[in-house]
Amino acid sequence: MASTVGRTIQCRAAVLHSAGSEIELETINVDPPKSGEIRMQVLYSSLCHTDIATADWGTLYPVILGHEGSGVVESVGEGVTEFAPGDHVICVYQGECGKCKLCKLSTTNHCEVSFGNLLTSFMPLDGTARFSSLDGSAIHHFMNTSTFTEFTVLDKTSVVKVDPVPLESACLLGCGVPTGLGSALNLANVEAGSTVAVIGLGTIGLAAVEGARIAGATRIIGIDILPRKFEAARAFGATECLNPQDHEAPLHEVLLELTNGGVDYCFECVGKPHLLVQALLSTTSYGTTVMVGAPRPDEMVTFPPAILLSGRQLKSGYFGGFRGKSDMQKLVDMCSTKEINLDGYITHRLPFSEVNEGVKLLSSGSCIKCVFSMDG
Amino acid sequence: MASTVGRTIQCRAAVLHSAGSEIELETINVDPPKSGEIRMQVLYSSLCHTDIATADWGTLYPVILGHEGSGVVESVGEGVTEFAPGDHVICVYQGECGKCKLCKLSTTNHCEVSFGNLLTSFMPLDGTARFSSLDGSAIHHFMNTSTFTEFTVLDKTSVVKVDPVPLESACLLGCGVPTGLGSALNLANVEAGSTVAVIGLGTIGLAAVEGARIAGATRIIGIDILPRKFEAARAFGATECLNPQDHEAPLHEVLLELTNGGVDYCFECVGKPHLLVQALLSTTSYGTTVMVGAPRPDEMVTFPPAILLSGRQLKSGYFGGFRGKSDMQKLVDMCSTKEINLDGYITHRLPFSEVNEGVKLLSSGSCIKCVFSMDG
Repeated sequence: MASTVGRTIQCRAAVLHSAGSEIELETINVDPPKSGEIRMQVLYSSLCHTDIATADWGTLYPVILGHEGSGVVESVGEGVTEFAPGDHVICVYQGECGKCKLCKLSTTNHCEVSFGNLLTSFMPLDGTARFSSLDGSAIHHFMNTSTFTEFTVLDKTSVVKVDPVPLESACLLGCGVPTGLGSALNLANVEAGSTVAVIGLGTIGLAAVEGARIAGATRIIGIDILPRKFEAARAFGATECLNPQDHEAPLHEVLLELTNGGVDYCFECVGKPHLLVQALLSTTSYGTTVMVGAPRPDEMVTFPPAILLSGRQLKSGYFGGFRGKSDMQKLVDMCSTKEINLDGYITHRLPFSEVNEGVKLLSSGSCIKCVFSMDG
Repeated sequence: MASTVGRTIQCRAAVLHSAGSEIELETINVDPPKSGEIRMQVLYSSLCHTDIATADWGTLYPVILGHEGSGVVESVGEGVTEFAPGDHVICVYQGECGKCKLCKLSTTNHCEVSFGNLLTSFMPLDGTARFSSLDGSAIHHFMNTSTFTEFTVLDKTSVVKVDPVPLESACLLGCGVPTGLGSALNLANVEAGSTVAVIGLGTIGLAAVEGARIAGATRIIGIDILPRKFEAARAFGATECLNPQDHEAPLHEVLLELTNGGVDYCFECVGKPHLLVQALLSTTSYGTTVMVGAPRPDEMVTFPPAILLSGRQLKSGYFGGFRGKSDMQKLVDMCSTKEINLDGYITHRLPFSEVNEGVKLLSSGSCIKCVFSMDG
């Protein structure tokens, strides 16, 4: 096969032409990487709720969604010495340049390059796109990554090289699983022996359960209105499960009674403001609530702030507070030793050609993680 | 003078008979301390907004207010070995038994004995009062302390012995000053070099300014609608001051522009929900807001929780997160070395007989701290 280095690649990509429409599989052009960029052959990509909710993000269309991807480096742009063709890499929407003011702060995992570019639909280098349709019109980027394509171009700040890994599951480390794990391990900093509640048992909720288990919580209450999610929750570490619809009392009252005064940490993993209030009310007087699910930007939360006075706190954070690049090898290692049960999140494996079927599965709550094989 | 040990003491106290009425100076009976209690001669007591806002707390009447007091031990109850007559002591509403589950947690400064009793209007030992009127009817306790009396009885968990100190100012260490200082030093954990805004420049606001200065913040913006408070704010460490009424734009927009993107830490020291929202909106995308002022329990805050997603956090906590007893000597030492400018908070010194005048001064915003000499 002739080398593709330095040339435009034509490949298959899933393109969304407008909010709410079906994703279309098309042949597109992928430009070679420019200075400081790499071109990656995406081998596996998994689906996250944020891909579906993208209309809220001010995304420009047409766009290539997907932000959880794993694969190998195809070629590198000028000045890139950190990567070489064939390297195993994972996409990280929450990138890290390692040099900016934010990368040097201990109080955030943001990066000026990556965070500043996150919602632009373009490459950070020059504010243009590397994707185009066969008629030459631009196709936009998404969350610094765009993984629903056989080849993508990434700024070097938004991709991380890792030791050789099972790539079929490594794509999951791009968003949801670290977000949930880190909410427990980094944002809440769950203490051993504590009591935890997790509201919503999708990927981020299950990962929050797993993070709490890793942190040594002794009581982990998994909460969902779909009891079919309880088996997975128990497998990840929930010591008991609760369906709010089995109770007449509001969820926080059920939790206060069940725990004799409140949980130490509550994770709201649905993204609904009324559940965030339930979470705040369900902790001890000095408990921590972490908002893990993403509410719509136009939704409001209302509660009496006096409930915070005794020491309740409310936190959140992108990517569970992990640094996109410098924390990734640690996460990979925790998967290798099975401390993180990464395969446990995968309920569906589909060929890339069935990307719309994956969207339907996730929207219906029938799947935890769906991984697409990009060659299928 | 005959020993008072073991006998009821008759002394002068300021008694509030109903919410909103004037405080009355009366002669009352103060019982000897029971097991685990001490009786203290209060020499100085300072006034805090919480004394005035007490009607919200479910206090029982008649009651002896005041929770910032310093003085000497008069006598000790059965089994008390930690204190001896003559010891210099400071009252701590946020007490510490040192033995309960909460005292052993690193995640809170609450104590089961003290926190559990805080709003009861009685002594924790037996749920009765040690104060009575001359006709024998009970007078209630307040916030584990009741310092507006020449003698008070305290559970040993709610009073701390310190090395001999200037008692005229040490009373201030009972609430407001540590609450503000600790909001910066403990709750926000302000980093050196950071940018801080403090909304409301009463005692807790000025102490938050001072805490930020001690932590090494390089830019400290003091905010109040009363410009006469700016001189004191600058003395405590504010590098600039701002009156929101000088601007047409909302406070958060003024702060975002002034700081080119937001403050790292914002302290809301007024206790108004709409200012709490301004505080949240005025920080960087990963900034910390600390609610230091106490909102009324029936007031609500409303904001879009999506603003938290990028890492904003909202915290609060009694007594600035300090432990009432085990952190007190450290605070005393910081006053001795002038790291904390304790005398700087005192704008008025009044004889105890003018307690109602002090209430008027504080309510009108004309004073920062008013200290009563209990023998006056």
